[in-house]
Parts: sequence; C-alpha cells; structure tokens
Amino acid sequence: MLKVGICGASGYTGIELLRILSGHSGVEVTCVTSEKSAGRRVVDLFPHLHGYENLVYEPLNKEKLLGRADLFFLALPHGESQEAVHLFFRSGKKVIDLSADYRLRDSRVYEQWYGVPHNFGATLGKAVYGLPELYRSKIRKAALIANPGCYPTSAILGLLPAFRKGLVDPSSIIVDSKSGTSGAGRKADVALTFCEVNEGFKAYGIGTHRHTPEIEQELSVLAGKQIFIDFTPHLLPVNRGILTTIYARLTKKTDTAAVHKIYAAQYGKEPFVKVLEGGNLPNIQRVRGSNFCEVGLKVNDRTNTLVIVTAIDNLVKGASGQAVHNMNLMMGFEETEGLKSHALFP
Amino acid sequence: MLKVGICGASGYTGIELLRILSGHSGVEVTCVTSEKSAGRRVVDLFPHLHGYENLVYEPLNKEKLLGRADLFFLALPHGESQEAVHLFFRSGKKVIDLSADYRLRDSRVYEQWYGVPHNFGATLGKAVYGLPELYRSKIRKAALIANPGCYPTSAILGLLPAFRKGLVDPSSIIVDSKSGTSGAGRKADVALTFCEVNEGFKAYGIGTHRHTPEIEQELSVLAGKQIFIDFTPHLLPVNRGILTTIYARLTKKTDTAAVHKIYAAQYGKEPFVKVLEGGNLPNIQRVRGSNFCEVGLKVNDRTNTLVIVTAIDNLVKGASGQAVHNMNLMMGFEETEGLKSHALFP
Amino acid sequence: MLKVGICGASGYTGIELLRILSGHSGVEVTCVTSEKSAGRRVVDLFPHLHGYENLVYEPLNKEKLLGRADLFFLALPHGESQEAVHLFFRSGKKVIDLSADYRLRDSRVYEQWYGVPHNFGATLGKAVYGLPELYRSKIRKAALIANPGCYPTSAILGLLPAFRKGLVDPSSIIVDSKSGTSGAGRKADVALTFCEVNEGFKAYGIGTHRHTPEIEQELSVLAGKQIFIDFTPHLLPVNRGILTTIYARLTKKTDTAAVHKIYAAQYGKEPFVKVLEGGNLPNIQRVRGSNFCEVGLKVNDRTNTLVIVTAIDNLVKGASGQAVHNMNLMMGFEETEGLKSHALFP
Amino acid sequence: MLKVGICGASGYTGIELLRILSGHSGVEVTCVTSEKSAGRRVVDLFPHLHGYENLVYEPLNKEKLLGRADLFFLALPHGESQEAVHLFFRSGKKVIDLSADYRLRDSRVYEQWYGVPHNFGATLGKAVYGLPELYRSKIRKAALIANPGCYPTSAILGLLPAFRKGLVDPSSIIVDSKSGTSGAGRKADVALTFCEVNEGFKAYGIGTHRHTPEIEQELSVLAGKQIFIDFTPHLLPVNRGILTTIYARLTKKTDTAAVHKIYAAQYGKEPFVKVLEGGNLPNIQRVRGSNFCEVGLKVNDRTNTLVIVTAIDNLVKGASGQAVHNMNLMMGFEETEGLKSHALFP
Repeated sequence: MLKVGICGASGYTGIELLRILSGHSGVEVTCVTSEKSAGRRVVDLFPHLHGYENLVYEPLNKEKLLGRADLFFLALPHGESQEAVHLFFRSGKKVIDLSADYRLRDSRVYEQWYGVPHNFGATLGKAVYGLPELYRSKIRKAALIANPGCYPTSAILGLLPAFRKGLVDPSSIIVDSKSGTSGAGRKADVALTFCEVNEGFKAYGIGTHRHTPEIEQELSVLAGKQIFIDFTPHLLPVNRGILTTIYARLTKKTDTAAVHKIYAAQYGKEPFVKVLEGGNLPNIQRVRGSNFCEVGLKVNDRTNTLVIVTAIDNLVKGASGQAVHNMNLMMGFEETEGLKSHALFP
Repeated sequence: MLKVGICGASGYTGIELLRILSGHSGVEVTCVTSEKSAGRRVVDLFPHLHGYENLVYEPLNKEKLLGRADLFFLALPHGESQEAVHLFFRSGKKVIDLSADYRLRDSRVYEQWYGVPHNFGATLGKAVYGLPELYRSKIRKAALIANPGCYPTSAILGLLPAFRKGLVDPSSIIVDSKSGTSGAGRKADVALTFCEVNEGFKAYGIGTHRHTPEIEQELSVLAGKQIFIDFTPHLLPVNRGILTTIYARLTKKTDTAAVHKIYAAQYGKEPFVKVLEGGNLPNIQRVRGSNFCEVGLKVNDRTNTLVIVTAIDNLVKGASGQAVHNMNLMMGFEETEGLKSHALFP
Repeated sequence: MLKVGICGASGYTGIELLRILSGHSGVEVTCVTSEKSAGRRVVDLFPHLHGYENLVYEPLNKEKLLGRADLFFLALPHGESQEAVHLFFRSGKKVIDLSADYRLRDSRVYEQWYGVPHNFGATLGKAVYGLPELYRSKIRKAALIANPGCYPTSAILGLLPAFRKGLVDPSSIIVDSKSGTSGAGRKADVALTFCEVNEGFKAYGIGTHRHTPEIEQELSVLAGKQIFIDFTPHLLPVNRGILTTIYARLTKKTDTAAVHKIYAAQYGKEPFVKVLEGGNLPNIQRVRGSNFCEVGLKVNDRTNTLVIVTAIDNLVKGASGQAVHNMNLMMGFEETEGLKSHALFP
Repeated sequence: MLKVGICGASGYTGIELLRILSGHSGVEVTCVTSEKSAGRRVVDLFPHLHGYENLVYEPLNKEKLLGRADLFFLALPHGESQEAVHLFFRSGKKVIDLSADYRLRDSRVYEQWYGVPHNFGATLGKAVYGLPELYRSKIRKAALIANPGCYPTSAILGLLPAFRKGLVDPSSIIVDSKSGTSGAGRKADVALTFCEVNEGFKAYGIGTHRHTPEIEQELSVLAGKQIFIDFTPHLLPVNRGILTTIYARLTKKTDTAAVHKIYAAQYGKEPFVKVLEGGNLPNIQRVRGSNFCEVGLKVNDRTNTLVIVTAIDNLVKGASGQAVHNMNLMMGFEETEGLKSHALFP
C-alpha cells in the first residue's frame, strides 16, 4: 500500500481527495494537515467520511511529516504551497501540488499574476503540468506534478484537438466559463453565503482571473507562439461543476461532423474524455462526482465559428480526481483506479 | 381607467402581467383567456393573485372579446398570435404582442426560423419593435407593438451604445446568454422538471436559437449593414433572470473608463437602464422582479476586446414589464407607472 | 410625510424595510445606521435600492439621531437594542423594535433564554407585542412595539382560532417549522455558505430555540394557563419563507370543514391572513415578497389530530412587513399601505 | 457472476440501481425494461452510465425475460408490479420488488389505500419486508422481498429502538417528513417543474399519504397492538434526501444521553445506521448518494417528548441501495458490497 499524506485536508479539495482515495485499492492515507482544525478528527468535522475514524488533523510540520508518507498531495492556498512542495520534492518524495504555485513555468508570469515572488526556481523547472491528455508520458516519469486549475482543465481539453490540427485561429479564442460555488473554497465570506449566491448569477474577474495565463501558457505551446485569450468566469448557483463555452474562428470551411471526427480520434482512447455525438451538448449534472469531461461541438457556418462546450466536476476532473489520475500514472496503478464511479444523477 | 385584456394569461408572462398591472393606477384588467383553464378563476390557479377574485379565464373568442377592452396584451405561443393580433389591430384596438410573430420585419426570415408562414404581411408592416431605448418616439405613436424577446433585449441593450459610436467591429459579435428556467414557459416536460434542471447547467440551440435573427435584425439596423452573430443560450437553475456576456473586438484602442462614459451618456436618462460604475458587474439577483437592466463594462487591452455584461429579469424587462412600459408610452401614462418596485433581494 | 429612521439598516430585515417603505406614500426615510458600513451610501452596498441615492449609513449615535425622525425601526441584534429602544421611547419617539428585546414580558424569562440581563423593566412594561391579528387595538395606541419573531408569527397565527374556540388540547402542541436561510441574517459564516446549505436540510436547536418562550407566552395567554410546546426549527435551502406544520390533539370530534369555518370567521376581515379552502395547503412560494400568511387545515380523524400549516415570508410578515403594518396602525395610515404587492412567483 | 434483470429501468430508482450495481463485484446486469424507451440504449438516455453501452431497453415481456436473469429488481409503478412479481417468484427467481405491491401484509389495507385489488394473496404471504435492521435473518432466507418505501424507512429506523425498549407511548407518534423531489419520480408534470418547486416548500397528502399504513404496520408489530400515526410529507427543493422529524411522548422521565445509549446499543453493529453523538443532528447532505441513515436524538424534558431526526438518501437507503443490501443478504454477498461509497459532499 502506498502511504499518502494530504496537506490542507479540511477544504473541499482536501476532503474530495479523502472521498476518492477511500475507493482506491492501493493507497493508505497516513496523515492529514489543517492549521485551524489541528487536534480534531476528520470525522468530527466531516461525519460522512466513515473509515477515517483514526485520522487526526495536525499542523503542517514538514519535517515531522516527511517520514510518514511516500507521496504528498498539497491542497494549500497558493503562495503557501511553494516551500512545502520544494522540501518534500528535494527529500525524495513524490509530490502532487493542487495549488497554482508550480503551474506557470515562467516565474515572472507567476509573480505578475499572483503578486508574490517564486523562491524555488530550480524546483519549478522540475514540475510537470499534470494534464494527462497532454503530458501523459512525462507524468509517468515525474516526481513533481503541478495539478491543473479547474478552469484551465475545462478550456484546454476543449481546444486541444482543434489546436493540434490547426482548425482554429489561435488569436481568436474566447473562453466563457461558469463554475459551481465549491470552486471558491470553504470559507466564511458574506459573498459566498447562500442568500447571496442562490437565485443569482454573475461574471467576475473579467480579463484578470489568475487562470488566464495558465490557459494561455498551454495553448501557446500548442499554437507554437504566444497567444492571448479572453477568459470570463461566472459563478453558478450549484455546488459542483464547470461548463465552459469556447468560441474560435475556423481557419477554413468545415462542418460539425468533420470536427467531431477529429475530436473523436484525438480522445478515442482517453478514459475520461467523452466526445458527445449527434450534436448533443454537455451538462454539468452528468459529470457530478465523476472524473469525466464531456465535450460537445458545433460549427456555426453563418459566422465561421467553432463553438466547443465542455463540462467537468471542478472538484474531481478539475482538482482531486485529476490529482489521483496523476498519482495513478506516476505510481503505475491502473489509470482509472479509484475513479470509475458514475456521476451522481439526479 | 384603461380597459385591458390579456390573451394567454395562465402562463408565466401572463400572470406576470397580472402582477405588474395590479400596481398600475390607470388600468383595469377586464378579461383573460386560457384554453385549458377556461371557466376557472385566476385565483383558483394562482391563489396569490389577490384582487383578481372576479376574473375568470375564458376561451380566446376574438369577436366576443373585442368590445371588452381598449388594449390587448397577447402572450400566446408564436404562430397562434398572428391572426389574433391582426384582428384586434384591424378593429382599432391597441395591441402589444409578446409572441415572436411580429418581431421580424422580413416575413421570409420569420418563415425560415419559425417554420410557419406569415399570413398578415400588411399588419406586420405596421408593427413597431417595442424596445423603448431604441424606438421610444415610434412606440408613442404606435398601435401595434412587437414586444422584444428576452434574450434580444439583453443583447441589444448591451451593444446599442457601442454600435451607435462605432466602438466595435460588427462582424465580431459573440453573445453568450444564460437564462433562468421560467424562460422556457409553464409546461409539463421531463426536461424542465426540478431534478433535471437543479444542480445542472447546459448550453442549447447553439447557432440555431430563434432569437438569433431578432438580435441580428436590430444590430444590422444599427450597423447599417447585414451582420451575423454567434449566439449561445444556456439554461440556469434559477427561476428568473438572464445574464448575457458579450464579446466584441474594438475598432481602436480605448479603456474601460472611456467606454463607460459613452454608455453613461447614452443611457443617462433611461429610467430602466443602469450602467454600473467602477468595474462593478451585474448580477441577476439585483434585477429579480424589477424592470431594470444592469450593464457592466470591461475593456480587455491584452486582446483588444470589449466585454459587456447585462442582467435583466426575463419575465419583467424581458417580457411583461417591457410590455407595460410600452403601454405606458402608447397611452401617455408616466413611463415608470407600475414599474417602480425594487428587485426582491434576497 | 412621517420621518422614519432605521437603526441596523444593512442586514436583511433592514434593507427589506427600505424596499417596503419605498412603496409607502406617507413615509420618508431620513436616517439609517450601520457600524460596519458607516460613511457608505445605501446604494453602494445595495445598488438595486434606487431612490435612496442620498441615504448614507452612519454610526448609531442615539442622541444625534433623535431629532431626525419621528419613528424609529430598530433591526439590531438582541441585547444591543435594549438601550436604544429605551432612549428613543423615553424621548417621546415612536419605536418599533424588530429584535427580541421587548417581546418577553417577564424579564426573567428573557434573561434565562437570552443569557443577558434586561435593564429597562419599566420600558419593557410599556411594550405591546406587535401581532395585529391579536393586539390590533392596543397597537393603535402604542408608542413602543415589540415586533414578533418570524417563527412565533407563523405558529401563533396557526393556532389562534383553535385556542380561542377551545378546539385543541393546549398541552399537546407540536410546532415543526422550516425556514429559509435569510432568517439567519447576513453574515460571514461557513455554516451559511452556499455549498453547506444548498441540497441540504437539517433541524437545529430542538427544544432550545429562543423563539420557544415567545410562542409559549402568547399561547399561554390564549389558553389562560402556562403551557409548554415542542418547537423544532429546520433550515431550508431557499432564500425566503417559513412553513410551519402544527399538530394539536382535538378536544372533541370534528372535521376539516367545521374547523375551516371557525378559521374563516376569525380571519375573514384580516387583510393579510388567507385561510385556504378545499383542503388546499400553503406553499412558501406563494407568499414570497408579500405580507400574507396562508393557512391550511386538515383534521386527521384516525388520530383525532388537527394539523395546521402556515406559510409566511420570514422577512415580510415575519419581520419588516409586519413592522410596517404596525406602523400603519400606530400612525393612522391605511392598514395595507405599502403592503399591497403580490408574491413574486415564479 | 449473478445475472440480474431490472424491470422499469428508466426511472430514477432504476438508473440508481444501475449506478450502484456497476460498483458491485458479483453482479452482471443482463436485461433492462422500459415500455417508453424500448429499443434505445441505456447510454442514449443516460450518457453518464458508461459501462452499460451494450444494454438496450426492451418491453416487459416476462416470459422472454425469465431465462435471462437469476434475480429481478422491479421498479415499476404500484399495481403494475403485482403480476410480474408473482410470475418471476413462481418461476423460481429471486425477486426484489421496489413498488408498494407486496409491502402491506393485509391485502384489504392495500386495496383500501391503493384503490386496486391485490390478485396474488398467496404470493403476498411469501414476501418479506426488506428492512434489514428489522428482518435481517428472514431476508437471508427469502426469495421475495418487498423493498420498503422511502418515508417508512426513515420513520421506522427512527422509532425501532424506542419501541423495542418501550420508551415511548405508541399512540402519540407524529412523523413529519421532508423529501427531495426525486421521490416523485421522473415524469412530465407541471407541479414538478423547476419553477414550481424551486424556492418553494409545501406539505401534501396530510393524513392520506399511502406510506402511512406501511409505517403503521411495522410500528404495530413492534408495539404489539394496532396503532395509528400522524404522518405529514413535505416537498423539499433538493434532488435527493429525506429528513424525518419524529415526536413521541416518553413513558417515563429520561434524558438524551440515556436514550442515546439505547440507540447506540441497538444500532452498534448495523453497517448503515449511524447514531450521532453529542446532540449532533442529521443533515441530508451528509447521506447524499450513500446508503447511510443518520439518527439524531433529543429529549425535551419541558414537554416529556423524545424528538428523533433521521436522514437518508431517498434513492439509496430509501430505495435502490436498500434493494442491493437485500440482494447481498439473500445471495450471501458481503453486506456492504457495492454500498461502501461516501456521501457526495458538497
């Protein structure tokens, strides 16, 4: 059994890791950290997490934790993750970082968008961006994974085949995303209270959201040149799910069927990407609690635009499920181990 | 007191008219129709509509209704409205049609998108598109109003000042809209049941929604040439509200403050359009139950794009409230009569 | 115009007072207080409250406020209201207190349930419990109103006719209430965040909720002896509304029709209580945003139990609407002034 | 591998069986029926049910189905299930009936509450009521299981230890239940549409709901005499979950801790019942998607009442999960096989 530690295990991505790993046959969670809840049992805070009765939150004392696990998931706020990742990694541990700290390869871009310096440039150079559909072979050999952001996962998976095949103009990309509220994390904030979110809907951070450079980084690699995108996130009054609607100008006349063929070929063997047929369109309710990404496609020939819609569960494929997928690849488990369950519908 | 009849008064737009008109000082509702509920009182179906205890649904017998009212609102399904509108109008009544039947000036476009012929071309030529911010003076003199669709209202109000001032490239328009479920009407349909909508979110009708040509018609007038747009509607798990996010390429370098100034100038005297300051963005919860349209603006200078966000209540500014606004203009009431109430928040 | 001040005007009951009073023909709001938001305009925090552009929050400086209004609404937390009420009242102002501080006539009961002393016993003796259906004539002459709690309003209105007529055993009362989340107020609290409330439902404070003695106080008056009840509140994942289901053993055999007749007679002239006919049952969605209380009745003859269901909007009839109703009675306005609007449905 | 057929597999309980069984190591689903969707694949209707790509709906042709499976789940409407159950059972198949047709032992009670005759009295006599906590040993030996209703499961589990120990007066029982909307099934009905359920809450079927005699039947067995209860169901605006609040007069003075001890002893070895400690109370969100039942307890010594609160997922412990639990017992699988997953929170 692989011994696993989770740093920052009292937030939504942390408890989602606990939920998913409880169904994984090759893993034992040996330690969990939380500053605020240190000393309390996991099941005191989250009584539904049966099976973890013996697991007690402790403070993030990196040296003390080192010997307790072979692989660490870090679900800490950005900025706070940098040093812990560095230390675990340099001590020979496998590390999967769910924060943003190791996602942007250029530390200047990181500093510009996150407003804090990056102090571990050499370690940053070792990180692999953990999107299996893009970097599977690198992930298998990696010791340090920067687990992708939720919005970037939904955007990049939507555009990957189109970019690979040169279907669309890379300078024309518009990414309009809508996320469930768990994406904002578990915290006391008037703006996140039920009455302020329920029956509401709004855009936020237009052009300034920190996932923008992450999407641009990966699309630029695919395009072979630096590109910029329009990215607008919105807050949905649902617990889970991201639906991303992408608009891209086609480089030549084509139709929905032809584009579908290209996407189906690209993703045919992917265990977690489902390209919908027959003009069907994704719905976040069909990926709730699962690691799947649904992709829908539509060519609008009146405007020569390809419209791509993707749906993921922001806490699973957009965070903890993808992290477990990365662990499976790194450690030689079956890719889908722990990740086979269906969406919970209704 | 103006005598008013409502044809199709048992759906959501019909009862919203009843709700709004009960607070209007100059109007008396004298007759309401519903085929399915003929013979039943309004308050039998909708017990909260106190004050209408004497109002009984009757079948749509146009000849019998004629003498009972001076102005008719028609909230019938498209196709069913055509003939009734024609007859009321030709009999000298004022008519406000909430269906799509008289919105598209070119009957061929109507027939292409709605799949039914238009049999009253001459009457169609008399209809005024009832968006007060665009056609106020024509509305004042009109006898027949084609009340705008909910999505078109949100899209056109978002783009009107930018088009007027030539700020954006008319061929670059992307309209990404998200609507509450009342927009689908009141009907038995598995796809509209709570469990199929709640905790879900999806796009539908990409590139094919019937509001597309309506938006294009009005934007083409503003642009002075035929344009085509990308329009994608989505279904939100809320009762009311449309949030529309619009992307348009700027024709020259500018910034958010400069664009705000143009919008504020255009809408400064409009009683129901509120241009938000300081980078604030609209939220549908702040227009719930009110006739207001919130407009938010953001220039993304990395991509040279203007992002516009609008929020309306689809049943009020997007339907029945705008219809009452049109009535006020046609009949010489104060513009805001019956429409002064605040959004219901929370 | 009556000059009105609102102390504690940045919470949900405070802004609901602003919403309702904006539709009242005889009132002008001259001052609003908020410690946290002092110096900011009402419309900065709540942009939908158009018409209040000149109203600026200020700290609760009682002496400075005195001359600015003739009547004060206090929507402060319990404990904080005591002294302000006392001072305004002793200075000759009309006072409507929406806190719990003046609801319990016996200050020992107050101290036992609220855990703080009551320092203004003489003023407490002057307060009238502001349930118009119970104390209309006293309210007309009162200068100090203790505005009822939301749960007590729903419970007492449900039982009033049955107690008056001796229909039920006063020692058998079970009150099972379900409240929307706005009842918990506007505050940063993880337990109130969207993800912790949405798709959830729970009971809380069984047997210990502070509204228990308030319900018991009024029912005891009606019963002519001290009684105790079982009261269980629950948290509903909706913004507004309380549905209360009450169980009471019948003192003699009867049927639903006979009980309906008694309730209809009691409430026939009440402007805001609607006794549903024909076995219809209340739904909170039909009172959303309105000052109405719906009452449904059912005799279960298998168990000899009367089941009563009531529905109110906790922020309107359960708080701010009832406060305005009380003001109307105190100041000689028409009872329904400002309170005529329909529920917002859907 | 046990071959399993599901009759009525396109409703919510049917697809929930498919979801749960996909995680069961000992079972293969060989046939599914649906009249309306005959000829279509399961994944055409429910694209998220990956792994069932080869499963095609067929009409309920009992003779043709017989040879295809060893055990049949029937998730048909009541009345329609009677004959199919009889035929499968008499042909030597194991049968788990999720309808109400075999739950009431006295066919006259069935006929009175369901309004249809019961034509298979001898088979009815062979059915075991499938509540494992009550009838585990009988279930192990049974060939025909009447799977309990969702409300009865929540009510009986709440009262079982209290009745066993004579803690409460059996004639005083009040069961106030609140159910998510999936309990109403998957069907086109205006009353179930999103706008009519969302932001609403109501009671229905007071004293007349068909689950009443089912609860009374099992409680009467426990009480040793015929009892009658008050049962009021309510409709919650959530997808899944039942919270039941039960009131029972205590037969003698006791306190919460003492009652907790009795419940903990009764349920200590039960894999799916969790008695909450320390005055904690259940929440439906902590059982969403899981087979657990949470039980909370509170003695109100002011009224001498025991208040019991239970929470289940109506589709899992209240239907399909309990059905799989029964199958596990009948067929000698580990009890928790296929049922180990945590609730999906948030």
